[in-house]
Amino acid sequence: MQLNVAQKLIREHLLSGEMTPGEEIGLKIDQTLTQDATGTMVMLELEAMNLDRVKTEVSAQYVDHNLIQDDYRNPDDHIFLRSASRKFGVHYSRPGNGVSHPVHMQELAIPGKTLLGSDSHTCANGCMGMLAMGAGGIDVAMAMAGEAYHVEMPRVMGVKLTGKLPDWVSAKDVILEMLRRHSVKGGVGRIIEYYGPGLDNLSAMDRHVIANMGAELGATATVFPSDDEVKRFMAQEGRGDEWVELKADEGAEYDDHDEINLSELVPLIAKPTSPDNVVPVTEIEGEPIYQSYIGSSANPGYRDFAIASLIVQDKYIANGISFDINPTSRQLLQQLVENGHIANLLGSGGRMHQAGCNGCIGMGQAPATGQNSLRTTPRNFPGRSGTKEDSVFLCSPEIAAASALYGVITDPRKLDMDYPEVADPKPIKTQEMLEAPPEDSSDIELEKGPNISEIPHFEPIEDNFELPVLLKMGDNISTDEILAGGSRVLPYRSNIQKISTFAFEGVNSNYHNQAMIKMEQGGHTVVAGHNYGQGSSREHAALAPRYLGLKVVLVKSFARIHLQNLINFGILPVTFANDDDYELIEEEDILQFNNVRQAIQEDDPFEVTLKKSGDTIMVTHSLTRRHKDIMLAGGIINWVKQRQ
Amino acid sequence: MQLNVAQKLIREHLLSGEMTPGEEIGLKIDQTLTQDATGTMVMLELEAMNLDRVKTEVSAQYVDHNLIQDDYRNPDDHIFLRSASRKFGVHYSRPGNGVSHPVHMQELAIPGKTLLGSDSHTCANGCMGMLAMGAGGIDVAMAMAGEAYHVEMPRVMGVKLTGKLPDWVSAKDVILEMLRRHSVKGGVGRIIEYYGPGLDNLSAMDRHVIANMGAELGATATVFPSDDEVKRFMAQEGRGDEWVELKADEGAEYDDHDEINLSELVPLIAKPTSPDNVVPVTEIEGEPIYQSYIGSSANPGYRDFAIASLIVQDKYIANGISFDINPTSRQLLQQLVENGHIANLLGSGGRMHQAGCNGCIGMGQAPATGQNSLRTTPRNFPGRSGTKEDSVFLCSPEIAAASALYGVITDPRKLDMDYPEVADPKPIKTQEMLEAPPEDSSDIELEKGPNISEIPHFEPIEDNFELPVLLKMGDNISTDEILAGGSRVLPYRSNIQKISTFAFEGVNSNYHNQAMIKMEQGGHTVVAGHNYGQGSSREHAALAPRYLGLKVVLVKSFARIHLQNLINFGILPVTFANDDDYELIEEEDILQFNNVRQAIQEDDPFEVTLKKSGDTIMVTHSLTRRHKDIMLAGGIINWVKQRQ
Repeated sequence: MQLNVAQKLIREHLLSGEMTPGEEIGLKIDQTLTQDATGTMVMLELEAMNLDRVKTEVSAQYVDHNLIQDDYRNPDDHIFLRSASRKFGVHYSRPGNGVSHPVHMQELAIPGKTLLGSDSHTCANGCMGMLAMGAGGIDVAMAMAGEAYHVEMPRVMGVKLTGKLPDWVSAKDVILEMLRRHSVKGGVGRIIEYYGPGLDNLSAMDRHVIANMGAELGATATVFPSDDEVKRFMAQEGRGDEWVELKADEGAEYDDHDEINLSELVPLIAKPTSPDNVVPVTEIEGEPIYQSYIGSSANPGYRDFAIASLIVQDKYIANGISFDINPTSRQLLQQLVENGHIANLLGSGGRMHQAGCNGCIGMGQAPATGQNSLRTTPRNFPGRSGTKEDSVFLCSPEIAAASALYGVITDPRKLDMDYPEVADPKPIKTQEMLEAPPEDSSDIELEKGPNISEIPHFEPIEDNFELPVLLKMGDNISTDEILAGGSRVLPYRSNIQKISTFAFEGVNSNYHNQAMIKMEQGGHTVVAGHNYGQGSSREHAALAPRYLGLKVVLVKSFARIHLQNLINFGILPVTFANDDDYELIEEEDILQFNNVRQAIQEDDPFEVTLKKSGDTIMVTHSLTRRHKDIMLAGGIINWVKQRQ
Repeated sequence: MQLNVAQKLIREHLLSGEMTPGEEIGLKIDQTLTQDATGTMVMLELEAMNLDRVKTEVSAQYVDHNLIQDDYRNPDDHIFLRSASRKFGVHYSRPGNGVSHPVHMQELAIPGKTLLGSDSHTCANGCMGMLAMGAGGIDVAMAMAGEAYHVEMPRVMGVKLTGKLPDWVSAKDVILEMLRRHSVKGGVGRIIEYYGPGLDNLSAMDRHVIANMGAELGATATVFPSDDEVKRFMAQEGRGDEWVELKADEGAEYDDHDEINLSELVPLIAKPTSPDNVVPVTEIEGEPIYQSYIGSSANPGYRDFAIASLIVQDKYIANGISFDINPTSRQLLQQLVENGHIANLLGSGGRMHQAGCNGCIGMGQAPATGQNSLRTTPRNFPGRSGTKEDSVFLCSPEIAAASALYGVITDPRKLDMDYPEVADPKPIKTQEMLEAPPEDSSDIELEKGPNISEIPHFEPIEDNFELPVLLKMGDNISTDEILAGGSRVLPYRSNIQKISTFAFEGVNSNYHNQAMIKMEQGGHTVVAGHNYGQGSSREHAALAPRYLGLKVVLVKSFARIHLQNLINFGILPVTFANDDDYELIEEEDILQFNNVRQAIQEDDPFEVTLKKSGDTIMVTHSLTRRHKDIMLAGGIINWVKQRQ
């Protein structure tokens, strides 16, 4: 059978399941990537599993998110992450090295391998002929411990590229065109595979741009073949010997199809407040801007900065404009310095920032009130910039640079100049900056600042117990309501004890106190309506209530990711067999559970008694074989410890 | 009479008073400098005065402090400051241009002029043969409005420099030696004037280093002559035609004397937690560090970065060290880029930050818990880094770079290399980046984001009134207790209405509410013991309570700067004629004042009645003629409006 690149990658790593779209498959993970905002929890999970050393071929920990050190917490996390990297056998990329995705591509990516990362844009390394996927922290921790990664077998959508990008149109316009066509839901349940003659005109870094924002399409992954261009890229990085060819078989089929003629694309721009709100830039030319921002993993390449430099060279940006330059890797910054591009950008009035994610994840560079911000970043969801009711547009570096010159949104094709040619820079080696772990890490201790605790041990669920109902909630409770994000709560991401004080505070400010009281009596339960746990994938929304004694969640239905998180942390997720029974339960009721461990092992509805009224209701679960094992072990950390 | 440089500068600008140390003198101010953290209030004050255009020769507004844009507030301030600069005829230096002091030196400083700045390190430009002084915001606003600056005539301390700095010893060691000898109080009431043959071996930027940290000596100003070196510096900046010679007369005398033989200096370091806690670096060699930090107005020069670059060239800094590079001006950064120094610093593992004050004022780069931080910055007061109980050492770039290589505090003389020679860079013009105000600013509106209010109008004090005593406090109440600093309160510095909600919250959390209630009945008073208003010079500590209706402060004695601030905002400061009367007053007492306006004009004690007991007590004030005019006008803003 002829296989496409995605199918080859999956077949090579398939540990369980069938390659039929929708079926659960288990994949062997070769490489992992963690960043600092999620990595502290991953490392604490490895500690809780008593892991000696990661079992992956390569794991790397990057420090690129929390670079603003207002107080001791972020630098303490950096020190902790370095110690954990050394202890568990992980490469450590220090602050200043840049954003995980381009650095990983430059230093560690290998075609044909799988990469799982605790960052949603991990998919960017699909540009290297890898199966690269973003996942929750505990999934990545499991992969580091050698466990398979489980996912539904996606459909593979083949996108045939033909033609060649016109002047002033670049890779960002390709992915914006995809978003224009398919929306932010268009990639759900799919791997997007690019192929065709148009590929010959897209560099490895151009492909990074396209693969990166596959996350905004909702795709499971984006893959490109590993061809001569990938070979050229790796040779330039001094890693030519690690290159492997990976191409679709002649005549390979795809589950879904699309085609883009690159020659026909025009400069595009995504208007607020969604990456798929895409129009030709001509539609909104002349809109005044406050900020023009280049950088981020969505436009990380040397070319992306060099083109902006050549556009503003020997000119001045408009007065009053903040032209924010965010280098994406140390190597790239050194090359831009060496070739005069930083001089151009500075000389035009650009504002240089440290290498990292920065404003792309709301770490500084928030725009002013009511002002338009033009960014080459991947996301413009409301408030993500740090400013509520912001107005962020996503575009190519060409549009960003042209607009910085004029202070209004500008079609770069109207600049009075030829489209600049960007020459390839001389390679600069920066591998020494990625600290390799010592061979023997037996004497290495984790270095924990005062804000870093450990993950509490949770006992497996008992057979018979009674739980008071602390909260009865309605439909569509989001993880933001279960555990808020934001700068008030986030600094405690490595401190479950502390972060749990914020649990459910928006629902009932007394929850934390009540839960603490009930904990000594054996814990509690909460009840809710449909779509419980929608929104962000944050695992703290399961972990924090679990710490406070939440043992069972009884609802009408669950949101998918939160359901997985509940199981991962040993909270039993059950639904009403009959939704009307929801009405029978009141807050402060006591639910009596019997023979629960047996009920978990079976797939049948089982009985729960409402102690006050004496009524009984039927509840049910939808646990897979694997889920059942995890639940009975008391969560995935216990489960993996049992297997060691 | 033979005059020294300081005396010449003062004589040239003397508007009132005698040049006798301790006497109040009024000085004409030629130039002003404001930075963003203090500048928003200055601009609001100019607005409240209905000023059309500044009356100084040159005023410049720099954006260098609040560069971290977590949300809309800081960028809103930047936009407001630009609009105010354009409206009032002030040069605007955008974020990214760097720290006010080196940028002002490069672009606008002129020998022989006076410079008043709302930043304590304004004294740095004394290196240019200027009388450069830091002051409170309202003082700078007054100078911008054309008013004299009043100060006690300082003593002039002549410091004779001889010899030449040995290899591995640089300007920072000169000022650290001064701090070692004289302590942080050694400069109080003094101008420090450097002279002698040793000057020939100190560049203009070396002198900036020394003048800058005159602030840490507590000096009113530091002056250097304007000699051939200043001429050379200005010619290099393309401003050779603006150079003026300014030297002490042959045989000029000084009030106080000291002498430093530069040849005898050794590398010095200030240990935590005071800049005068100075020892030879040899005393603490080998102490492990977490951070090495270069930059800030205390080591802002091209040389200061180039020497670090040449020390780390072709080497790697120790693993786990954060080697933070903080460029101090756009021009300097461009020169460092052009000459390969940024490449060296990056290549060694340095972490580049945006040009600005950054970690020096606690905006990012806080050290980790319990870890040593080595900095070329001017201050290491406890917690200033952003980390409570921090451990910050102050040193030269030579020590910082050498220590980054080894990860421990290192005497740079032990490096296995010759002392690098730093060649002068080619000049780079950046004056276009300093936006000059338009000639005609009549149609320019202030652009105020939602967090920027205006300064309320305050009526002049009445003749007869009754005031309830809302607080009765003890001795040594600091401005921190009157109005806290920190990240919770600071974002409201341009919003008096909002910031007033924090007034006296540490003394009585109900103060704000009570004051609001009493405001409608005519305001209130507070009573305290000795040394009321000690600590920081923040003018908000007067302005916020004034906004809440504080009309009179009755205490045993005042701290000097807060007394001035009370008068500036029209709050009558009175003291007990007999300290024992303090005991007669209770909170919630009502004080009855009669014929107050006449009492202000006279210097005699006057009667106040305690309404509850019927007792009368005598109180007094120490207002000068000028203070009386300001009080009767209802504060300095009203006073200056009357004079327009």
